[in-house]
Amino acid sequence: MISPDFYGFIAAALTTVAFVPQVIKTCRTKKAKDVSTTMLLMFITGLLFWIIYAIHTHALPVLIANTITFILNVTILMLKLTYSKENSVEETAL
Amino acid sequence: MISPDFYGFIAAALTTVAFVPQVIKTCRTKKAKDVSTTMLLMFITGLLFWIIYAIHTHALPVLIANTITFILNVTILMLKLTYSKENSVEETAL
Repeated sequence: MISPDFYGFIAAALTTVAFVPQVIKTCRTKKAKDVSTTMLLMFITGLLFWIIYAIHTHALPVLIANTITFILNVTILMLKLTYSKENSVEETAL
Repeated sequence: MISPDFYGFIAAALTTVAFVPQVIKTCRTKKAKDVSTTMLLMFITGLLFWIIYAIHTHALPVLIANTITFILNVTILMLKLTYSKENSVEETAL
């Protein structure tokens, strides 16, 4: 019989590491125009609330998973904003 | 004193509803080229494991939040695949 925690750990690992390919893709293509800024802002705010919740309830796995996901999503947002600025400068220059 | 559950509910609501703007944006622009397919596949698989975990532990809030997030992300993946197919057909036709 598989422990429910086993599924929980796989779930937490996958929903955390999932954002690494997005970071890599955005770095490689230097584009994130199709990624919704509103989604990123809402998701990042939600993760911040998960971090506050984890601190209050001393839930270390929740804290670790959400902190990593938070860092990855802030990175995606920063990359998106940087590249959209660069692209608009290039377009103006052309 | 604010209950930790209060932060938990806000967190769950935000990290779930966050994907609605992405669905709307993708429907509107008919493009999701910059959204990583690997991210979507890993995230969806992770959500599936959260659903299994929630069923095993009878965690109803976890089940509801992750089921909605799962449906929204499958929708984003389907839209991405549909539009990338349509765009490649258009490019071939041109």
